[in-house]
Amino acid sequence: MKANDLQLLADVQGSPDSRHLPIQKVGVRRLRHPMRWQAKGQAQPTIGEFTFSVELPATKKGTHMSRFVTLLNQHEAPWSVADAPRVGKLLCETLEAERAFFEVGFALFVNKAAPVSGVSSLLDYHVTMRCESTHHDAHVTLVVQVPVTSLCPCSKEISAYGAHNQRSHITITANVTDDVMAEDIIATVEAQASSELYGVLKRHDEKFVTERAYDNPKFVEDLVRDVALALKKLPGLSQVTVEAENFESIHNHSAYAILTL
Amino acid sequence: MKANDLQLLADVQGSPDSRHLPIQKVGVRRLRHPMRWQAKGQAQPTIGEFTFSVELPATKKGTHMSRFVTLLNQHEAPWSVADAPRVGKLLCETLEAERAFFEVGFALFVNKAAPVSGVSSLLDYHVTMRCESTHHDAHVTLVVQVPVTSLCPCSKEISAYGAHNQRSHITITANVTDDVMAEDIIATVEAQASSELYGVLKRHDEKFVTERAYDNPKFVEDLVRDVALALKKLPGLSQVTVEAENFESIHNHSAYAILTL
Amino acid sequence: MKANDLQLLADVQGSPDSRHLPIQKVGVRRLRHPMRWQAKGQAQPTIGEFTFSVELPATKKGTHMSRFVTLLNQHEAPWSVADAPRVGKLLCETLEAERAFFEVGFALFVNKAAPVSGVSSLLDYHVTMRCESTHHDAHVTLVVQVPVTSLCPCSKEISAYGAHNQRSHITITANVTDDVMAEDIIATVEAQASSELYGVLKRHDEKFVTERAYDNPKFVEDLVRDVALALKKLPGLSQVTVEAENFESIHNHSAYAILTL
Amino acid sequence: MKANDLQLLADVQGSPDSRHLPIQKVGVRRLRHPMRWQAKGQAQPTIGEFTFSVELPATKKGTHMSRFVTLLNQHEAPWSVADAPRVGKLLCETLEAERAFFEVGFALFVNKAAPVSGVSSLLDYHVTMRCESTHHDAHVTLVVQVPVTSLCPCSKEISAYGAHNQRSHITITANVTDDVMAEDIIATVEAQASSELYGVLKRHDEKFVTERAYDNPKFVEDLVRDVALALKKLPGLSQVTVEAENFESIHNHSAYAILTL
Repeated sequence: MKANDLQLLADVQGSPDSRHLPIQKVGVRRLRHPMRWQAKGQAQPTIGEFTFSVELPATKKGTHMSRFVTLLNQHEAPWSVADAPRVGKLLCETLEAERAFFEVGFALFVNKAAPVSGVSSLLDYHVTMRCESTHHDAHVTLVVQVPVTSLCPCSKEISAYGAHNQRSHITITANVTDDVMAEDIIATVEAQASSELYGVLKRHDEKFVTERAYDNPKFVEDLVRDVALALKKLPGLSQVTVEAENFESIHNHSAYAILTL
Repeated sequence: MKANDLQLLADVQGSPDSRHLPIQKVGVRRLRHPMRWQAKGQAQPTIGEFTFSVELPATKKGTHMSRFVTLLNQHEAPWSVADAPRVGKLLCETLEAERAFFEVGFALFVNKAAPVSGVSSLLDYHVTMRCESTHHDAHVTLVVQVPVTSLCPCSKEISAYGAHNQRSHITITANVTDDVMAEDIIATVEAQASSELYGVLKRHDEKFVTERAYDNPKFVEDLVRDVALALKKLPGLSQVTVEAENFESIHNHSAYAILTL
Repeated sequence: MKANDLQLLADVQGSPDSRHLPIQKVGVRRLRHPMRWQAKGQAQPTIGEFTFSVELPATKKGTHMSRFVTLLNQHEAPWSVADAPRVGKLLCETLEAERAFFEVGFALFVNKAAPVSGVSSLLDYHVTMRCESTHHDAHVTLVVQVPVTSLCPCSKEISAYGAHNQRSHITITANVTDDVMAEDIIATVEAQASSELYGVLKRHDEKFVTERAYDNPKFVEDLVRDVALALKKLPGLSQVTVEAENFESIHNHSAYAILTL
Repeated sequence: MKANDLQLLADVQGSPDSRHLPIQKVGVRRLRHPMRWQAKGQAQPTIGEFTFSVELPATKKGTHMSRFVTLLNQHEAPWSVADAPRVGKLLCETLEAERAFFEVGFALFVNKAAPVSGVSSLLDYHVTMRCESTHHDAHVTLVVQVPVTSLCPCSKEISAYGAHNQRSHITITANVTDDVMAEDIIATVEAQASSELYGVLKRHDEKFVTERAYDNPKFVEDLVRDVALALKKLPGLSQVTVEAENFESIHNHSAYAILTL
């Protein structure tokens, strides 16, 4: 028989479980919500896509999904590497769990000056922050995707003129402390590309980036090695992985490399 | 011979063209940028994906792409149906064109109260605004995608108990004046669904929406007809098209309908 | 009260409707199914994503969705422009409708020889066939997306060396008769690009395509105009639209043009 | 100075490297190609999206990308778990590498009989095969995504009638031997869902699956546990991970769980 008295609605999720199987992560995902990200200098409004989960012990049938969403709706602080451990511990408490995990992916915008004209414009980067935590401890990971230009050394070397080039994505995944900002990772990556990208380029700037790329040919192998070497010098990073994907302008597939330090 | 004097860089785009073919639209697309949208009550920060283009007469070789991006970087006002014609005319002037077009797609968030507990949470909707304009005239179109619950009338009727239901997208495309806000369209659509969606539902709310959906079974055909009839009463809309797509819970494909008033 | 006798299950979709609103298209979409496409020379196995729909008169409550899927499961012939009208009429008959529409999108593979070494490899193109039909008449549309290399004329002109280039998509949408094959459209488009793409390129081939692209710089505006002029000479096409999108290697957005003849 | 003699084109990739950084994986990705998959009973034509890579020692500047694509174009055998180690070793030899990795994702179709009418239709599943190999050894992983119906136990328990349900994806990732076929994994998963999906359902079938789902309510937690227990009994699997994602019909986000045995 079904409950009609609203006070008596059964707590199905709260009942015991006899399957003897803990679940490493259970929660919600693909949850879009406005957020502020603590960018260099100031908090930046953006839109996050969130995942929240907790560990579920073998003895419990289910978690309480609505608490994740309530927590997100009540969150007012800017999201940041520095604040992530606090949020992780709050998840553990709110969901009565030993371990919690959350992830947020968002567009970060950086104001860049064109290399010759100095004209400023925003460029967008996709950043993901992940946090694994217990009541006492947390590990924070940043994933930063940096779009750049790559120019093929082989094509340059063997051709009488020109060289094929293309947009590439260089993606950094690293455990981070709050000594490092996403913008630091971005700048380090861009310095190693054949050229960096800009929102607005005037003609003198376009000449500059064209010639810069031709002067700095890099294979996908060069990109991951040079970026890895440069990131070694950035404090606050550990367990660094560098991926590069070139959306080849002469093929309909990508060249790809991944290097873990 | 190539130019070395920066003052003398050729304006290749500005040269004449002899192919006798006008281009209806040329510009930039997939340009992500922070923006504010003039939501009901207040401007809401969000992230837009922009397309900008102009008509290119047969006599011109190319347009000046960087001007579109500069215009976006200089834009400070909230984006809105009311302000779109001004932007369209500005595009015509800045690009020295007879006709301009722009489009921006973004996530709009609406604060909703759960139906029984009254707990408030945000729900996200995808909205696209399009504007076709000349120096004197502009037409603005809104595309509003509203996620809802649909419950199958056939499944309910023929089954001893239960009924399959699923998430559906109802998408409204309409020419609009500034008498109408996206939130008005959303509320009108949600009132016609088997049930509307919420970010947070407590148990009493979940009981309510489950029973509401079962009490309001709708085929994809019912959704487009009922929404179309309801939108007829909303002032400020014309050339209305209603689409519904049910991500069927019993199949691995969708049911789909489109109705143009 | 609910039916228990399987013989007596109500035909809810077949009941009359009083809302006085015809529905232009109702059916199924996002239906994946193996298929053969009548490529040049031979039928080619591939995977299609299908949409099927019919017009629903104002007097009918719903269509019979399962008939679309049954028709697809029983279809054995290769899909082609020549055969599409027969399928369209079959849809009208099977669904007892005045008008029917279907669409299928799939990957078409073409065997290409590298320009110097002659090494052969497959390249993939995305093709969509659409068919609007009545019991007596049908119009078939092909949408063919051709990935190519584009090299920027401005970048080449103003730079001391090099020129930015990138992968581009040129998309042709045209009403077609069975005088034209997708491969004819593809070859016509590729001849107008800065360079065409290949699956496999040996070093001598890479030198060739690098230099070919540098020798044939094209703006997005040039691509749509040159392709449009070339397609004018191809028999069997009408209502031709040409789109070009350059995934710019110096920006994080695309350049885009659309030209309708 | 640039080479003009085709015989003398430099092998840039083959030159030595002094950065002292090995690269775990370098190769090509997003390569679409027709393939046959060794399904139960017979080889099935489908379209694969391929990744191929090898380990690059610290001393080498680059790999030879075209060899991967040549190998794919020359591959004639059906792809299978049983044959994957041979392909992995061939990659090691062809690319002169100590370790190789490849991955192929594709749509697998299974012919299913509707539960009451027995009407047969195909259902599509997304399968990914991964293979890590050396010259002597290989590990093969299958990732099988199974779309199912899930019905919420809480919604059923607390509501006077009805229960929200939705399409869900259950994804199995496991090391496999050739004792196991993807179809075995699929059947095992489907038996644990609230209901399985079908391409075609007649009215009597729709009644059956509606009632079956109502009789088998499962949280996302139940899905991963019940599937994990069932997969324990399937020979040929190890390191099994089960994920479930419910595309909630009452929310605009997903419920999600992941369990590793």
